[in-house]
Amino acid sequence: MAAGLEHLQELLPVAGVELGTVAAGIRYRDRPDLAIIAVTGGSTCAAVFTRNAFCAAPVIVARRHLAGNSPRFLLINAGNANAGTGIQGIVDAETCCATLAELGGVASTAILPFSTGVIGELLPVSRIQAALPQVWQVCSPTGWSSVARAIMTTDTVPKGTSVHFTCQGHPVTVTGIAKGSGMIRPDMATMLAFLATDAQVPKKVLQRCLARGVAESFNRITVDGDTSTNDACVLLATGQSEVSIATIEDPAFAALQQAVTEVCLSLAQAIVRDGEGATKFITVEVAGGRNIQECEQVAYTIAQSPLVKTACFASDPNWGRILAAIGRSGVPDLEITGVSLYLGEACVIHGGVLHPEYTEEQGRTVMAQDDITLAVELGRGDARVQIWTCDLSFAYVKINAEYRS
Amino acid sequence: MAAGLEHLQELLPVAGVELGTVAAGIRYRDRPDLAIIAVTGGSTCAAVFTRNAFCAAPVIVARRHLAGNSPRFLLINAGNANAGTGIQGIVDAETCCATLAELGGVASTAILPFSTGVIGELLPVSRIQAALPQVWQVCSPTGWSSVARAIMTTDTVPKGTSVHFTCQGHPVTVTGIAKGSGMIRPDMATMLAFLATDAQVPKKVLQRCLARGVAESFNRITVDGDTSTNDACVLLATGQSEVSIATIEDPAFAALQQAVTEVCLSLAQAIVRDGEGATKFITVEVAGGRNIQECEQVAYTIAQSPLVKTACFASDPNWGRILAAIGRSGVPDLEITGVSLYLGEACVIHGGVLHPEYTEEQGRTVMAQDDITLAVELGRGDARVQIWTCDLSFAYVKINAEYRS
Repeated sequence: MAAGLEHLQELLPVAGVELGTVAAGIRYRDRPDLAIIAVTGGSTCAAVFTRNAFCAAPVIVARRHLAGNSPRFLLINAGNANAGTGIQGIVDAETCCATLAELGGVASTAILPFSTGVIGELLPVSRIQAALPQVWQVCSPTGWSSVARAIMTTDTVPKGTSVHFTCQGHPVTVTGIAKGSGMIRPDMATMLAFLATDAQVPKKVLQRCLARGVAESFNRITVDGDTSTNDACVLLATGQSEVSIATIEDPAFAALQQAVTEVCLSLAQAIVRDGEGATKFITVEVAGGRNIQECEQVAYTIAQSPLVKTACFASDPNWGRILAAIGRSGVPDLEITGVSLYLGEACVIHGGVLHPEYTEEQGRTVMAQDDITLAVELGRGDARVQIWTCDLSFAYVKINAEYRS
Repeated sequence: MAAGLEHLQELLPVAGVELGTVAAGIRYRDRPDLAIIAVTGGSTCAAVFTRNAFCAAPVIVARRHLAGNSPRFLLINAGNANAGTGIQGIVDAETCCATLAELGGVASTAILPFSTGVIGELLPVSRIQAALPQVWQVCSPTGWSSVARAIMTTDTVPKGTSVHFTCQGHPVTVTGIAKGSGMIRPDMATMLAFLATDAQVPKKVLQRCLARGVAESFNRITVDGDTSTNDACVLLATGQSEVSIATIEDPAFAALQQAVTEVCLSLAQAIVRDGEGATKFITVEVAGGRNIQECEQVAYTIAQSPLVKTACFASDPNWGRILAAIGRSGVPDLEITGVSLYLGEACVIHGGVLHPEYTEEQGRTVMAQDDITLAVELGRGDARVQIWTCDLSFAYVKINAEYRS
């Protein structure tokens, strides 16, 4: 169903990172569902986590472990979210970390655990423990695409991308993978995403880089308005390249920032394209607002309207529903005479009323495409935002009515 | 599809009110789609309208006319919302009012127009004008159920109810009808609803009565989170009974308030039960909040979560999705250890963790029913709210993907 998603491109290895997967039988049969990402000593790590008050046990444990030393292993499972599992969930996550720590000869706090899948069931700890020695053995620098597959749940395609650039005369690589197709909403990292670069970057600078990248990508997408309990995005820097970036003022920082943002944006848009049941990729642009907040208000009201989303699914240029969404978005003192609306390049509403030259035929042509842009001009300022979403199809209902059953 | 809705009960006439309908061919073929409600001179009228900034032409005209004399006729059409139609829409609404005013021998401002249906198409004024003399001729005190049918759009059943009570030793009647099944969200009146009573009530007192009734009913329901451009709720008081209520301190006011709220609640719940594609009627109760606002925040986050709604459709006790919705509802400093969750009578979460005696079987039994109650205790105060919604089914997508096409 993924709207316009191509096959996973070749993912570039990142010096200092090795990855492996195994079929641990956590929920699925005969497919890898357990992964580790190992980084060399001396690496730094930045991370952002869900803001959901009911955050999952692995999120609590990962936050704790991050406060100490730099992590050496990320331990990821699909099929079970270890969320809503109380104290036992935390004990279970710690137990898995301890097992891997022993194998790796590191402290337990050098392991960051991540889980994705069904909420409210206890983690099958013994199955994970039994599988860890195997995954340990198959780790390799080329394991990125294998991990991209192992962390999938309702995803229909694996998601990953690499960016390669030259800095200070030396090559730098940024590679990232992600999973997520439902329970996606802009509120901090909105899925699981793991990025790594071989640049050498202090933790604080790396955190700044990740936060900026996430703000312009993962925090600008929405599938169904639901924020997960388990969302996390991690950026590792192994320092194995010749490039060292000490501060955010460093000219090399801008190059790294651009690459990280590009990888984040590519992954975020891939998540939307693979949104549960998605058949259309929708860009919502809102310009002419007094500030970013009101542009976001309008953009998300449109992007999360079930009526707008079903109209997109039906390729129906039902601009009345978009207008209604703008009208109820809660922008203070909105003068409708300043509002314009475009479906693709076609101006439908100008100055609050139907454009005399707009034809239903124009609208149908735009809405029939796989990639649709809905653009709104509020006519009251200079702020603008762009967000991405997908349509609401029969398949969304089917997937979410059947998942778990 | 209507979840647990019975056939339209017998609607009691209200002395001083006559109603009629006709098939004007506005959009539908061979079914009534134009209605008038005529009230006797000396009646008073209260009304609440949509807060959508893109409110429709009839809403603008009705508000204007209401500012003057008391209305004598409500003119209602289904199939065309006359919204997003700019100045021409206002001219069209005024033209229809003028035609009816001439027939009735009253000023144009004594007519309140209401439209519901597709947004963005011009009103077929001449067809309405041509049909008005016929509808004029068939008006009768028993026309309530006929109007309830004529104003339907994606509704699958007509909605109406009557309450009869004795006050000051005399009988009083309150009868109401409503339409609405999609584009429903709590933000002022959320559909078209017309109520009348034969009590004698000054306009100000009547407005207070309606506002209170709406706050506890229409403003507590949600189908898809979309607020219409055309929503309106009107309460007429003809003064034809012996009962006169001069102030809100009058003991009779409490009796009238109770009856009006009862009618509003019955109509509002009928709208949810007939929600587009609804197969389940869901009550969301949130108690133990510090204030009403945070209870509403949690309740609407649950009620509008597509994941929770599809789980209800699937009869799946997927309480993890409810927990995730509570967690992301934005309640400040929510301590999850204070949170409890009930599916019907079954306690699933107590003190933030799974209740040891809860079984999946219990949950399945609750979720398999047509009427489901999801109850949350926040454990941090005394405020509580109750709202109503429905599930998200294949049929919702089908209806909204096909409507208009």
